[in-house]
Amino acid sequence: MTLTVLFSARPALWDDYRTVLPAALSAEGIAARLVRMADPAEVDYIVYAPNDDLTDFAPFTRAKAVLSLFAGVERIVGNPTLTQPLCRMVDPALCEGMVEWVTAQVLRHHLWLDRNIGRRAWVQEAPPLARDRRVTMLGLGELGLAAARMLRALNFRVTGWSRSPKTDAGFPTFHGEDGLKPALEGAEIVVTLLPDTPATRGILDARSLGWLAPGAAVINPGRGPLIEDAALLAALDAGQVGHATLDVFHTEPLPPEHPFWARADVTVSPHIAAVSRPATAATVIAANIRRAEAGETLLHRVDRARGY
Amino acid sequence: MTLTVLFSARPALWDDYRTVLPAALSAEGIAARLVRMADPAEVDYIVYAPNDDLTDFAPFTRAKAVLSLFAGVERIVGNPTLTQPLCRMVDPALCEGMVEWVTAQVLRHHLWLDRNIGRRAWVQEAPPLARDRRVTMLGLGELGLAAARMLRALNFRVTGWSRSPKTDAGFPTFHGEDGLKPALEGAEIVVTLLPDTPATRGILDARSLGWLAPGAAVINPGRGPLIEDAALLAALDAGQVGHATLDVFHTEPLPPEHPFWARADVTVSPHIAAVSRPATAATVIAANIRRAEAGETLLHRVDRARGY
Repeated sequence: MTLTVLFSARPALWDDYRTVLPAALSAEGIAARLVRMADPAEVDYIVYAPNDDLTDFAPFTRAKAVLSLFAGVERIVGNPTLTQPLCRMVDPALCEGMVEWVTAQVLRHHLWLDRNIGRRAWVQEAPPLARDRRVTMLGLGELGLAAARMLRALNFRVTGWSRSPKTDAGFPTFHGEDGLKPALEGAEIVVTLLPDTPATRGILDARSLGWLAPGAAVINPGRGPLIEDAALLAALDAGQVGHATLDVFHTEPLPPEHPFWARADVTVSPHIAAVSRPATAATVIAANIRRAEAGETLLHRVDRARGY
Repeated sequence: MTLTVLFSARPALWDDYRTVLPAALSAEGIAARLVRMADPAEVDYIVYAPNDDLTDFAPFTRAKAVLSLFAGVERIVGNPTLTQPLCRMVDPALCEGMVEWVTAQVLRHHLWLDRNIGRRAWVQEAPPLARDRRVTMLGLGELGLAAARMLRALNFRVTGWSRSPKTDAGFPTFHGEDGLKPALEGAEIVVTLLPDTPATRGILDARSLGWLAPGAAVINPGRGPLIEDAALLAALDAGQVGHATLDVFHTEPLPPEHPFWARADVTVSPHIAAVSRPATAATVIAANIRRAEAGETLLHRVDRARGY
């Protein structure tokens, strides 16, 4: 039987996936037709990104899963019409890219790389070694844990924090609301790699930014709402935060009038820390469809109560 | 018997070592007095950096070794008056610092980090993954090998080159004059971490720079003379090299009139990629004196014929 897979995402993504996704399905032994429009009652799976016009999932009575092309699902998880199982994208290439970006930005701040870009003078300043640099990772999921482990391999003094307890991280970790202060206290570099949920929104606010070491660097490749922008701006003005490198924002693209653009102590990165790569993401989608057809459990299924 | 250890280096280094070196000697069980001046005939060991006025080693008839505070020994190894064994500094902290700096600079170029520093526009450009980025390491000694292995851990496609064959590097390697072209051909990022010897001087010249991928990045934390400056400037003008980040130079500090200063496609780093740290370097010196006194072989002894 030929499955009907609806591809609901903006045209640019269709161009990325129209060839690689059928190939990946075929490689898994799945007979499927990938379509951009279909009678909802005939759709077996929905491949989804939150930038097309699909918002009502109720008519898709036959659909066995909604497979997100994105790792972040905050724009769909609360949709009340969504009763089908929802899976996040966990793309190995996305994880690799994130590890590279986080490692690069942490090293950039650790070694003060920017200081010698364009400087026309010979000024020798030796930073401390990574083993004497305190880095805190907020979020120990797939991405946060992989990035933190790479930072450990570079000898950084890594501390981790997550909502629920984490064992075997390979470095000291704290968890829950009570664990946030000991995790952040004295951190010289903090990286936020949490999902956007009601429990994580604004986790870096005036209070928690105050726990960092004076002049700390904030690096956010996670989600914009993890940071209260007004609190970050105040902390930058006060010197409590020395620099912020932000890849994600409350509104994207970052509006031209936003104060972040004009500041030398903020680096605006245009949501490129990690991108799904069609070739690898397609194999993840195809493998999940094969699993569902074989009656196996879906991988990376979203827990609606936790929001990710 | 109390040993006499002569400390011959500039005053700033004396300030760094005057406390930590006696402590390190004492920790090794060595009775020694550390002095800045002494009757040459009474000196047992010379701790040395090439920035004081000691150039004649002949009167030090009793000295059992010259222990360099620097990893690079090109300014002393050819001294005809030096008949005593010479040891290079192999400071574990120096190696750590070098791995951090090389990893940072390779990631900076790989991810085009500079592009978003100070840019006031939202321009999404996704670099390839490290696994698709070809990096060549010239030099597979203590430092080059450690840095290359960290780049491998980040998935870079690393190729190595050294003067003599290297096995078990964990990545493809070439060696000798004939191996240079296959090692450099198509490299997108090249790192030079070789000693300065007659055989390595000018190893990056017009011919070898021409083997790189067009627009390649050159990163030199090794020694200035490894690169022919005129050839590098011509390759930058032609776009064959896209950017050079240089930490070492033929003359240091880099003279104000040198064309490197004025170019946006050259980053001048003031010889800070890796610095010896007095606390760890002192333990290396003390351990070598203990070994010599116990009749054991000296560590990191320089081979005069090879020059390092």
